[in-house]
Amino acid sequence: MPHDHIISAKQLSRADIEEVLDRAAEIDDNPAAFTQRHPGALLGLLFFEPSTRTKMSFTAAIKRLGGDVVDMGPVEYSSVEKGESLADTVRVVEGYADALVMRHPSEGSAKMASEFVDVPLINAGDGAGQHPTQTLLDLYTIRENAGLDDLTIGIMGDLKYGRTVHSLAHALTNFDATQHFISPESLKLPRSVRYDLHEEGATIREHTELEPILSSLDVLYVTRIQKERFPDESEYRAVAGEYQIDAQTLEEVNDDVTVLHPLPRVDEIDHDVDATEHAQFFEQAHNGVPVRMALLDLMLEGESA
Amino acid sequence: MPHDHIISAKQLSRADIEEVLDRAAEIDDNPAAFTQRHPGALLGLLFFEPSTRTKMSFTAAIKRLGGDVVDMGPVEYSSVEKGESLADTVRVVEGYADALVMRHPSEGSAKMASEFVDVPLINAGDGAGQHPTQTLLDLYTIRENAGLDDLTIGIMGDLKYGRTVHSLAHALTNFDATQHFISPESLKLPRSVRYDLHEEGATIREHTELEPILSSLDVLYVTRIQKERFPDESEYRAVAGEYQIDAQTLEEVNDDVTVLHPLPRVDEIDHDVDATEHAQFFEQAHNGVPVRMALLDLMLEGESA
Amino acid sequence: MPHDHIISAKQLSRADIEEVLDRAAEIDDNPAAFTQRHPGALLGLLFFEPSTRTKMSFTAAIKRLGGDVVDMGPVEYSSVEKGESLADTVRVVEGYADALVMRHPSEGSAKMASEFVDVPLINAGDGAGQHPTQTLLDLYTIRENAGLDDLTIGIMGDLKYGRTVHSLAHALTNFDATQHFISPESLKLPRSVRYDLHEEGATIREHTELEPILSSLDVLYVTRIQKERFPDESEYRAVAGEYQIDAQTLEEVNDDVTVLHPLPRVDEIDHDVDATEHAQFFEQAHNGVPVRMALLDLMLEGESA
Repeated sequence: MPHDHIISAKQLSRADIEEVLDRAAEIDDNPAAFTQRHPGALLGLLFFEPSTRTKMSFTAAIKRLGGDVVDMGPVEYSSVEKGESLADTVRVVEGYADALVMRHPSEGSAKMASEFVDVPLINAGDGAGQHPTQTLLDLYTIRENAGLDDLTIGIMGDLKYGRTVHSLAHALTNFDATQHFISPESLKLPRSVRYDLHEEGATIREHTELEPILSSLDVLYVTRIQKERFPDESEYRAVAGEYQIDAQTLEEVNDDVTVLHPLPRVDEIDHDVDATEHAQFFEQAHNGVPVRMALLDLMLEGESA
Repeated sequence: MPHDHIISAKQLSRADIEEVLDRAAEIDDNPAAFTQRHPGALLGLLFFEPSTRTKMSFTAAIKRLGGDVVDMGPVEYSSVEKGESLADTVRVVEGYADALVMRHPSEGSAKMASEFVDVPLINAGDGAGQHPTQTLLDLYTIRENAGLDDLTIGIMGDLKYGRTVHSLAHALTNFDATQHFISPESLKLPRSVRYDLHEEGATIREHTELEPILSSLDVLYVTRIQKERFPDESEYRAVAGEYQIDAQTLEEVNDDVTVLHPLPRVDEIDHDVDATEHAQFFEQAHNGVPVRMALLDLMLEGESA
Repeated sequence: MPHDHIISAKQLSRADIEEVLDRAAEIDDNPAAFTQRHPGALLGLLFFEPSTRTKMSFTAAIKRLGGDVVDMGPVEYSSVEKGESLADTVRVVEGYADALVMRHPSEGSAKMASEFVDVPLINAGDGAGQHPTQTLLDLYTIRENAGLDDLTIGIMGDLKYGRTVHSLAHALTNFDATQHFISPESLKLPRSVRYDLHEEGATIREHTELEPILSSLDVLYVTRIQKERFPDESEYRAVAGEYQIDAQTLEEVNDDVTVLHPLPRVDEIDHDVDATEHAQFFEQAHNGVPVRMALLDLMLEGESA
């Protein structure tokens, strides 16, 4: 892992990604071997925005490695409220920890913060920007369920605003996947993302309906369509129903497809899917722990080396 | 401990209760022997409602056993805010922890949540429902101070709405205690609880005054009478004063009685009681740690077996 | 360390201070030797008021010693909201921890609370009162950079309301420093503090301008001038600019001066100072960890002895 900071999935080469995923697989195979990998290591948590699963899984990850956290707590209790700059805050907090994890509402903030600190910093989401560990755990889950080579994936839902989706799509260009994008016309991939994927030589197809291509997919990655994206609720309801899936559809059309979702979901995946073998989205969330353990292990290893 | 989840004190047999209390006594006698019982064990904290002492004492308990916590944090920062169902939240969080503790405002929520997870779940209060570890620490404190056999206990205050009181009274039916209930007429035991106690063969008596029976008690368990239960403040004040105790009353009438309270108190126990040997309510709060350690120890032991 | 509780820097003799600073220096020299000093020790955190750096650095400190925290969390989630007295809260929480750290908005609250508990309690700020560990880390940083003997220090900014400044000035009377106080007329040292320093035999001088004495200083300790102290913003702006420093001023007038600040800063130290060797304020913040480790180590050592 030759990177000091992990700001964007785009900075990771295929070799980098595989190094993390391989380490995560080792951890999954034998977690007991890692419980004392980094005794006493402290991970500083700087969440300038709420988060449940990302914060909890980073916390679990460092503790499963024998370390611990030092948490800034909610931003309304922090010195930021007293007018302190982000640069000052991170320079203070780096003195309390061996590595930092930061989530912040402003795009570009993680990159900026990383320039002020000497300890490794991991971006855990910077607004509309990047969230590289989500991408890594998505890739890990795809690899475990369908493999990353010769993959045919469908990515469905809000493709316009979905940070997670853009990042995953880009990362998959390292693996020559065929990517199908399924969304209402108004929530298609932004032109800039489409251009970017073409530049990387990706094989992509865009659709407004799932049904015609469902049978060809190894993985279906579903994201939420947010009500707020539509001018009125009737328009939302007209569209949203088209991008909801249930167990019956899956069983009838593609008995093998793995269904993923970054969670939380509302109603885009019916609860009757949960009990089927398609449903790997809880497993995907749980994979946040071994994948973040792997990343932290590689970064802290690099530090002490 | 043959139970996967601890949802209600009612599910615990006399043998179950004694197993927990005996283990708690072992811990109290020799805490050092337990500091490395569950190294690396992670307890997931899901507090959908505020709590100080319950959350802190579970945290202390797992840390005193060599483990640690992964805390969801306040609910307003959680995915629940994004419309995620409780079932989804617990299924995600179980991937971050070896056992879960949950407090939630809705009666029945702990039972429901436990049906979705494979790791042991402990109910730390579900609205007007159950809070079994409070009952266990109450029983432990009674046993340490007065014994559970041939016990004569007075339970005073708000007997109508007091979850703690109903649960304790029920648990004491395992031990053939004589139970006196002292309250204003308007806050008497609900008929259903009285019926339930009779069904279990309990010996119970109801009173509106403490004075006539105080001398017969081994233990006096006091709870708060909340202003909000009365139509107006004058009515509240007329009644509340009758159910407040002070050192003088205790010394004059019953020099041996142990006074307990689930805390926080407001003015139902005068501060002049604190310095007397009657006052065991802080000890009672502290007993939350060994009792919760005992329960966690037995449950995690069961897990790894 | 002959003190059960650390309430005020004023209770610390020169010998006490040097014991803490010496221990902190040992820790800085060889942190690895301290990672298992207090395995399993639990520090109770009672922050009745927001705090970032104090809470985080106490957390880092106890964890760097092998211990852990039990945190009450934000006060709005605590039993205080239900009308519980501070005395009751601390008596409950002492059962969950081996030592307590408390911040509270009311002056005198830490002293009061300490009278109710048997475990050591450290005051982490009681309103306009004391914050002794801030003073200890200030002294440590001064000693590391300029020495405490024959020191000439300038203390600039809000000298009227600045708790930090009063406490530091008093502590420096143990070391025969020459102290210059620089502030606008309206924010001069309060008469009571000036009297107190004279009583202790301190050598003090008061100024309204920095420029004439800057060249004589070993250390310049800057604090923030708060807008809210002035009747209107124009008056504030007229004054505040006089007490801001930048790299050019420092380089031209005193190439050796160490600049400190308790942080957070707003604009009283220009960011161009950060990259110079004058700037020791981030180091100062980081010194919170070894200094608090030293104090905790001495107090917990005393406990187990």
